[in-house]
Amino acid sequence: MIGGATKLFGLVGHPVAHARTPQAMNALFERNGLDAVMVPFDVPGTDLARCLASLSRVGNFQGMVVTVPHKMSAIALCRDLTPRARLAGAVNVMRRVGEDAFAGDMLDGEGFVVGLAAAGHSVAGRRICIVGAGGAASAIAVALAERQPAKLTLINRSRERLLALHERLRLRFPDLEVVIGEHVGGHDLVVNATSLGLREDDPLPFDPEQIGPGVLVAEVIMTPEITPILHAVARRGAAIHAGRAMLDGQLDAIFRYFSEGGRIAVRRGREA
Amino acid sequence: MIGGATKLFGLVGHPVAHARTPQAMNALFERNGLDAVMVPFDVPGTDLARCLASLSRVGNFQGMVVTVPHKMSAIALCRDLTPRARLAGAVNVMRRVGEDAFAGDMLDGEGFVVGLAAAGHSVAGRRICIVGAGGAASAIAVALAERQPAKLTLINRSRERLLALHERLRLRFPDLEVVIGEHVGGHDLVVNATSLGLREDDPLPFDPEQIGPGVLVAEVIMTPEITPILHAVARRGAAIHAGRAMLDGQLDAIFRYFSEGGRIAVRRGREA
Ligand SMILES: NC(=O)c1ccc[n+]([C@@H]2O[C@H](COP(=O)([O-])OP(=O)(O)OC[C@H]3O[C@@H](n4cnc5c(N)ncnc54)[C@H](OP(=O)(O)O)[C@@H]3O)[C@@H](O)[C@H]2O)c1
Ligand SMILES: NC(=O)c1ccc[n+]([C@@H]2O[C@H](COP(=O)([O-])OP(=O)(O)OC[C@H]3O[C@@H](n4cnc5c(N)ncnc54)[C@H](OP(=O)(O)O)[C@@H]3O)[C@@H](O)[C@H]2O)c1
Repeated sequence: MIGGATKLFGLVGHPVAHARTPQAMNALFERNGLDAVMVPFDVPGTDLARCLASLSRVGNFQGMVVTVPHKMSAIALCRDLTPRARLAGAVNVMRRVGEDAFAGDMLDGEGFVVGLAAAGHSVAGRRICIVGAGGAASAIAVALAERQPAKLTLINRSRERLLALHERLRLRFPDLEVVIGEHVGGHDLVVNATSLGLREDDPLPFDPEQIGPGVLVAEVIMTPEITPILHAVARRGAAIHAGRAMLDGQLDAIFRYFSEGGRIAVRRGREA
Repeated sequence: MIGGATKLFGLVGHPVAHARTPQAMNALFERNGLDAVMVPFDVPGTDLARCLASLSRVGNFQGMVVTVPHKMSAIALCRDLTPRARLAGAVNVMRRVGEDAFAGDMLDGEGFVVGLAAAGHSVAGRRICIVGAGGAASAIAVALAERQPAKLTLINRSRERLLALHERLRLRFPDLEVVIGEHVGGHDLVVNATSLGLREDDPLPFDPEQIGPGVLVAEVIMTPEITPILHAVARRGAAIHAGRAMLDGQLDAIFRYFSEGGRIAVRRGREA
């Protein structure tokens, strides 16, 4: 029951109509008896700074989940950043610190790994290929690199972002074999971390012919649930892992991140 | 169930913790099957313009109920105003018009009169005294003046606002007897339209000794439900009418104002 004292959280992106984070977070708030609500804010790309400056002045606004296209630009609007957010060059959660500022963290990578683990897939010792070098790919690469894979191959359309990600990973994980590649063949786990698959006329993010039985192909795209590339590799005998697991895998972490901010009151007559 | 496509409405004020409008409006949205939600925005006085400029750019933000202390200053932020909002010099509802602007209306006066009528009290032919000359008093004065009272007496602490309200009413209702007074005695209906009664150490808005049996005393303050002045006059045999009725009386009008904006979708599988 939303009232005048309810703490406000946002799902900030553009577009947001397809997002399912508010439903999931509100169920968590409800289950924990917190007087808090998450609502969508459809904020066009150029308006983020102005909008966050205003929201930081709204007394009961406590934080937000940040989604496409704002994850990278939101970095500049955080007063404090965690090391993994800095490394990924992106944030996907922000919470109020002090009177009119926000701190940021990047939980997408953790969410991806937790989602994999929940489905029974391990990372250690695997040869892994990540396709994409944007916010999601960077976060996933960091979380995977922390879990001792045998090898990490990076592939991306544009060379500049690819080299930048490769360099950041090399510096942070000097003992890990991180290479720039061109083909997805020869890996145990292949991750589509591009935005390809969201729109119906998108090309496939990589050639499914290079994927054989025994390979696991994971996706970051949530809608459609089974993307064209997942369909294509499943037909070739590969195991598949849908993008939805990455969000489900980080809900608890998002909830903890907001709660640690320490400003959500438990509803009267309920326990946390 | 709030989702990514949910339309967003605000209750904008400072403070807002005591407000009950979100509960009431969300029940109305729910009952009508609309995919919309009202949440509180605790916005300090000096931040209103900046905050509304930002909210006007949030794609799914559709409008707001405006409350203390913003009702008068919000006037300057509306592209379109209804005649009654202009006359009252204040708005209490705003809705999106076009890409990045808002229109405003003032429903407090209607709410007050609808609330009176719902409790069986009529206005026509009565001698009415309004104490206060701020946003609420102005709105109430206009709504009462439209309903043929025998006489309207205006009382207020500061002379300037009192004279301004008197002048606006005289010009708009030339046939009505509108006078500036000093005492609440000699009226059938006395309205406390000041903000006195909200805080525990507030003085009484007028002298209860001047109120006798048969007089109706109405209140705009909602918390506490029965204010000290209502207690005092009830002890002297007067009939009382609590401030809550003014909000209840305008909920349908607020809902209509938002719906006429025409941007709230009915939830799948429900009818409006
Ligand atoms: N499931 C989840 O919980 C979750 C979490 C986060 C993100 N996501 C999804 O992940 C996707 C990517 O998000 P992001 O934040 O990483 O976006 P981003 O920073 O914009 O990166 C987009 C990536 O996709 C690549 N790409 C886009 N169009 C392409 C094309 N036509 N051909 C080849 N490559 C193309 C880009 O390559 P260039 O570098 O060459 O531009 C870049 O590597 C989004 O669709 C988002 O919804 C899901
Ligand atoms: N029930 C409802 O639906 C509803 C709707 C709207 C408003 N309200 C309530 O109505 C109240 C007034 O709102 P508003 O928007 O009209 O506020 P406002 O514009 O600030 O006006 C306040 C009024 O109270 C008077 N006042 C304040 N302190 C005083 C004092 N110490 N002594 C004498 N007079 C004093 C002011 O007199 P001066 O002109 O001399 O300053 C002015 O007439 C608020 O408490 C609000 O919560 C209720």
